[in-house]
Amino acid sequence: MTFTIQTVSSQFDQQIQAKVDGKTKPLGALGQLEATAKSLARVQAMVTKQVDSLVISQPNLIIFAGDHGVASEGVSIAPSEVTGQMVANFATGGAAINVFCRQLGWQLNVVDAGILHEPAASLNVIKQRLGCITQPLHQAPAMTLASVEQGFAMARNLIKQTKEKGSNLVAFGEMGIGNTTSASAIMAAIMQISAQETVGKGTGVSDDVVLKKQKVVAQALELHGDKLTDPMQILACLGGFEIVQITGAMLAAAEENMHILVDGFICTAAAMIAIQINPAVKNYMIFAHCSGEQGHQKMLQWLAVEPLLDLGLRLGEGTGAALALPLIQAAAAFYNDMASFEQAEVTNVL
Amino acid sequence: MTFTIQTVSSQFDQQIQAKVDGKTKPLGALGQLEATAKSLARVQAMVTKQVDSLVISQPNLIIFAGDHGVASEGVSIAPSEVTGQMVANFATGGAAINVFCRQLGWQLNVVDAGILHEPAASLNVIKQRLGCITQPLHQAPAMTLASVEQGFAMARNLIKQTKEKGSNLVAFGEMGIGNTTSASAIMAAIMQISAQETVGKGTGVSDDVVLKKQKVVAQALELHGDKLTDPMQILACLGGFEIVQITGAMLAAAEENMHILVDGFICTAAAMIAIQINPAVKNYMIFAHCSGEQGHQKMLQWLAVEPLLDLGLRLGEGTGAALALPLIQAAAAFYNDMASFEQAEVTNVL
Repeated sequence: MTFTIQTVSSQFDQQIQAKVDGKTKPLGALGQLEATAKSLARVQAMVTKQVDSLVISQPNLIIFAGDHGVASEGVSIAPSEVTGQMVANFATGGAAINVFCRQLGWQLNVVDAGILHEPAASLNVIKQRLGCITQPLHQAPAMTLASVEQGFAMARNLIKQTKEKGSNLVAFGEMGIGNTTSASAIMAAIMQISAQETVGKGTGVSDDVVLKKQKVVAQALELHGDKLTDPMQILACLGGFEIVQITGAMLAAAEENMHILVDGFICTAAAMIAIQINPAVKNYMIFAHCSGEQGHQKMLQWLAVEPLLDLGLRLGEGTGAALALPLIQAAAAFYNDMASFEQAEVTNVL
Repeated sequence: MTFTIQTVSSQFDQQIQAKVDGKTKPLGALGQLEATAKSLARVQAMVTKQVDSLVISQPNLIIFAGDHGVASEGVSIAPSEVTGQMVANFATGGAAINVFCRQLGWQLNVVDAGILHEPAASLNVIKQRLGCITQPLHQAPAMTLASVEQGFAMARNLIKQTKEKGSNLVAFGEMGIGNTTSASAIMAAIMQISAQETVGKGTGVSDDVVLKKQKVVAQALELHGDKLTDPMQILACLGGFEIVQITGAMLAAAEENMHILVDGFICTAAAMIAIQINPAVKNYMIFAHCSGEQGHQKMLQWLAVEPLLDLGLRLGEGTGAALALPLIQAAAAFYNDMASFEQAEVTNVL
């Protein structure tokens, strides 16, 4: 499947910068909010052909859940059952991400991308199952290339619907016991570094478990070898059903000229693959949060991006992205609503 | 004037921790939001004698503006006139802080603590003038001790009114051309370090001006010498009318058992003095933002506190504190509304 993504152009950069610099504040004094406003403006100007105002419309956060065969190796704090239990918790509104979405005005959707215990039919969960659990990535490819393609198609469809309902900004969350192991392996494959440099404590495992995770990741890298030069193969060999769909959703969102708010470690692994597949996706992304997971900072440095928040979160679910929304809205608000030096009759000394 | 501040007790700490740890998330996975929730809960439990729920009520941001005699030395990017122009901009709603307060639900008040050009009577500005401009701090005490006392009394009165109207959380912003010079001098006096280590670029001056600022601060430290061991004398010798009133307002807010959200460099200088005057005030404070101003990070390290945001803002006006409000509300929201493992029937493996 090919995603047709418009390259974000620098055509309007001067006009956008002039607008930001005309506001009643010293040059650059709003720091990362200025960078964020400019990033939003570049994407929107491409479509609207104007730089006068920014719109953030119906922010939509989609949690993708998937189970990981590797979880049975004891690489996580919890058994795979917990994935399904947490999906039910998302669907009934009790998890951290529910609380933050209600507080901050996110529309929240929960997708079963392939989990062990199928959620009860009564729950409001979107079914996009690629299976019930991946193969253990250190023993076999996690899934087939056909599953990756199928995951992309389903994710693209969901994003198209989200856009049609009026959203222009999406974020993704994930739930999947074992998925920091998968994300660590993806990180190692893309950055071509060792398991030791990528594996961390996930949501809070012991040092022994970290060693076990490192061993499993090293085995996986060894097993899949040369195949790992291709991003689609990286997904098939090392991915998870949720990671595949997040990657596809990011590419699809860029295809739809939507802003993409990137959450923590797992979502950044998906973002890295998406960028390998089509580099044009990167300029649609805003990085929300630097996770407490040790590898995440390295990923962000490798991508040369600066996240908005650094709160030591290591929960997943999209919580870092959810919490960054007010900052995105603040960037749009100052861009739209602050007075210029002229309007406010303030001496512009610069 | 003496402020009677209740010491925040650790009496409820175990109950608060148990409540946080019972939520459907790995232990500690909400990072700084957990620390924030616990800080809120300790203060509120002192009054309510319960740890079941947190309330953030009518958050109130007060900007204090003052002019600084030292500004005529050319230590700033702008002339003192700009202080009054920006006060008018605040009063008519065009500044960054207005935009953020409207977006995020802050009640905003603007106080003339003593500026060169008195705001037009038609503007909605609270008059608490301690003069029209301070003495240049490197040539004389910035003001008298009586002015400091008067500033404290006026600030306390305003905080009492704010509390009576139903607010339990306050933040302070500042405007005053020249006030990073004053704050740098205060920082040097309290931390007993040199002008070189405290003076930065403010809202964006050149390297030459940084040298001039350093020279002025060094002269001020030399001039006032031994007097600078006393926090009230530090305020009188080195402070500004806005810094004095912010210090008093912080002490008064703690006296009223209110949460205090501390903004950037100038407000942290005020916080440091407030803590010197009465150390009990510190546990009522939540630090909002690490400023782009170079000295601020050192101050925060010296205070051993971790701010919620680090967005490279260097604007003042209370913008860092304003932007942190959604995180404070998120901390209260997860504490109040997240399901426990028991409620959600999620396996608690810990």
